[in-house]
Amino acid sequence: MGEQSGGNKPLRIALLGCGTVGLQVARLLIERAAELAAQIGRDFEIVGVAVRDLTKPRPGIPADWLTDDAAGLIIRSQPDIVVELIGGLEPAETLIRTAFANGAAVVTANKMLLGDQGQELFAQAQSAGVDLFFEAAVAGAIPIVRPLRESLVGERITEIVGVVNGTTNFIIEQMATKGMAFDAALAQAKQLGYAEEDASADVSGRDAAAKTALLASLGFHTWVNSGQVYREGITALTPEDFQAARTIGCVIKLLAVATLSADGAVSARVHPALVPADHTLATVSGAYNAIFLESEHAGKLAFFGPGAGGVPTATAVIGDIVTVGRNRIRGVTTRVQVSERALPVQGMGQVASHYFLRFQVADAPGILARVGEVFARHNISVRSLNQASDADATGRVQLTALTHLVLEADMQACLAELSHNDFVNGELRMLRVWGL
Amino acid sequence: MGEQSGGNKPLRIALLGCGTVGLQVARLLIERAAELAAQIGRDFEIVGVAVRDLTKPRPGIPADWLTDDAAGLIIRSQPDIVVELIGGLEPAETLIRTAFANGAAVVTANKMLLGDQGQELFAQAQSAGVDLFFEAAVAGAIPIVRPLRESLVGERITEIVGVVNGTTNFIIEQMATKGMAFDAALAQAKQLGYAEEDASADVSGRDAAAKTALLASLGFHTWVNSGQVYREGITALTPEDFQAARTIGCVIKLLAVATLSADGAVSARVHPALVPADHTLATVSGAYNAIFLESEHAGKLAFFGPGAGGVPTATAVIGDIVTVGRNRIRGVTTRVQVSERALPVQGMGQVASHYFLRFQVADAPGILARVGEVFARHNISVRSLNQASDADATGRVQLTALTHLVLEADMQACLAELSHNDFVNGELRMLRVWGL
Repeated sequence: MGEQSGGNKPLRIALLGCGTVGLQVARLLIERAAELAAQIGRDFEIVGVAVRDLTKPRPGIPADWLTDDAAGLIIRSQPDIVVELIGGLEPAETLIRTAFANGAAVVTANKMLLGDQGQELFAQAQSAGVDLFFEAAVAGAIPIVRPLRESLVGERITEIVGVVNGTTNFIIEQMATKGMAFDAALAQAKQLGYAEEDASADVSGRDAAAKTALLASLGFHTWVNSGQVYREGITALTPEDFQAARTIGCVIKLLAVATLSADGAVSARVHPALVPADHTLATVSGAYNAIFLESEHAGKLAFFGPGAGGVPTATAVIGDIVTVGRNRIRGVTTRVQVSERALPVQGMGQVASHYFLRFQVADAPGILARVGEVFARHNISVRSLNQASDADATGRVQLTALTHLVLEADMQACLAELSHNDFVNGELRMLRVWGL
Repeated sequence: MGEQSGGNKPLRIALLGCGTVGLQVARLLIERAAELAAQIGRDFEIVGVAVRDLTKPRPGIPADWLTDDAAGLIIRSQPDIVVELIGGLEPAETLIRTAFANGAAVVTANKMLLGDQGQELFAQAQSAGVDLFFEAAVAGAIPIVRPLRESLVGERITEIVGVVNGTTNFIIEQMATKGMAFDAALAQAKQLGYAEEDASADVSGRDAAAKTALLASLGFHTWVNSGQVYREGITALTPEDFQAARTIGCVIKLLAVATLSADGAVSARVHPALVPADHTLATVSGAYNAIFLESEHAGKLAFFGPGAGGVPTATAVIGDIVTVGRNRIRGVTTRVQVSERALPVQGMGQVASHYFLRFQVADAPGILARVGEVFARHNISVRSLNQASDADATGRVQLTALTHLVLEADMQACLAELSHNDFVNGELRMLRVWGL
């Protein structure tokens, strides 16, 4: 049972971080104070806003709320709820642990930290008897954490597939529609404010991997951390990839995929994938996010909404503050994992996918047979194979192959052999395919 | 505060009704007992299943669970949770009130009853200190109640639009794709099990209106009952309507629409509407449901999933049982309305829509001018007007008109005048348009 906030004293809320999201959370708490207090069932007050740089302008935030001593704010002001919107591993982790140690509940949007240290932090929250809420950490404003935690708790979810990073989704769209190279599309995304100056967590897939870890943990009632999520970013995508995708009626998306097999093994991965252009996932555009669930009893469920942005993300934080506040005044907490299991997480080698291969071979008799032999040796079952009608200036022809479901380990072994073969010249490109 | 279930005694669950949904709920409670008990945090037992007809076979349900005395089951077996899956107004209402009077929490899928008596029942639940949960009452397996109640509680939702009745959605699709008349499509839906023998609640829009009332109540933090929802069913739709829709790039859907205006007035309605074929709502097919939310801060959110069927609906019931069970063992309840207001509900006359009109006029000079005069007299601003190039055998030509946003009251007055005018002959058809 949580620590009950005494009497009818206002709930005390401390904000850590006042950036894109934090500023909007503060603004909503100020502007909608009366309505939110009615929803919580008690008045609240903001006891302070911890920032790194006290000199930076914070429009609408009373100057006497600001402090650059976050730990001191937590320890001295005895908040009921600490709202952590600093992001990243440190000092966020230490501050959250300080909050728990001081009996405060925590609301956070910090996917990186939870993806890395979620299990430990939730354990500490539980032993401290306080809440740790994080709706904003996954897919921004889309309400996905509560549905997974509560509505679907009686359900066996078998697959979670999502577009969960708006920055890369925007970059990929620019590459697809304008034929831009990655670097140019990234530069444009920064210019337009769709990407931060340091976009490495986005383009490397790290951000998506952390969200995938949280989705898999919630959906499958186990713990998966970011390090267990196989990850490929979008930096290696080329305009040729997008052209080739079009030839088979597909678009490219950076997908987050998590599966639970019938025998109870989890897989989790983030990588670019070809998606049939007529699949709903292919239509998720710009900064929007989408999450598709496949479940044993409820069938297919899908959720769409804005995946980022200060204001949409702030609404998810506010929803958590209200729930945690209501819990607090009743002296209860909501457990994050209601049925903990320690399911094995498969390595990527054990995952089966469809694959699309594109490579050049010498334009000579018998080459197709030799390619076929390599495929056969590695259990690669080919669904369709296409050979360009004309050789290029160097006497090579382009081959493309679409496979049936194939184990990643077999595909990697096949690629290794193909790349060392004398008849495969130039680029050898593999992209996974989802939704066939 | 709710009544706390004493000690570590198993939670006692009574099921009322063992039809399509009830049977699946019982089956899931039996098959997944261990897992669900872990999720609740305590063992549970089924203390009885009340049915109307004891002689009907109930595969998998132990015969000694069955009783035809529902009230007796509630009073004598002292259940912690009563799961009401009988549906309809009576005896469901009396049984739910009996459950409250006996200190039991209630989980129900009964949209008709809640749409009619929701405010009163929630008030009784609250004064009895017990939970009343109803995720399955709206959009089957789609988790929409919790997101509205909790995740989006800090949000100002301004519009809720949905396809919330799978039966009519299936019938409409048959009419659209096969050119079938309503009666034939309804007969086929019954044959294929998509419609019940008595499909009047579906085709009249009553089922959708009840769900709309619940969605508007939850989304706008007020109370709207089914009687306040303007309602037109699908029985008047003709093959010609579908043909005409296609000519302007639209499909027809039975839409549930609820809006909250800037000055705090609610509108709620269910009627067939033209929807642009490239809008995501137009792609919701068969027994699937979809709900779109427009919100001030979180922007556009959408939810898709199976809207009916015993198994998907049962999973929503199970999710509620788990949450209510967890509440029960902690002695707490979740309030359904966290911020009660009594917002005015507008009559349909005050609602603005785009309209599509289709009617025949005498093929004579000056007719268009006279039609234009009628439109002008009623403040109907026309976006496009089309006149068929040829008159039919009786010397009439077909006119179609698409309007800008127009008040329903003005449109109705315009239609009244047009229908009594000497130059309008034959059918005069109006369909509302959404999503332009």
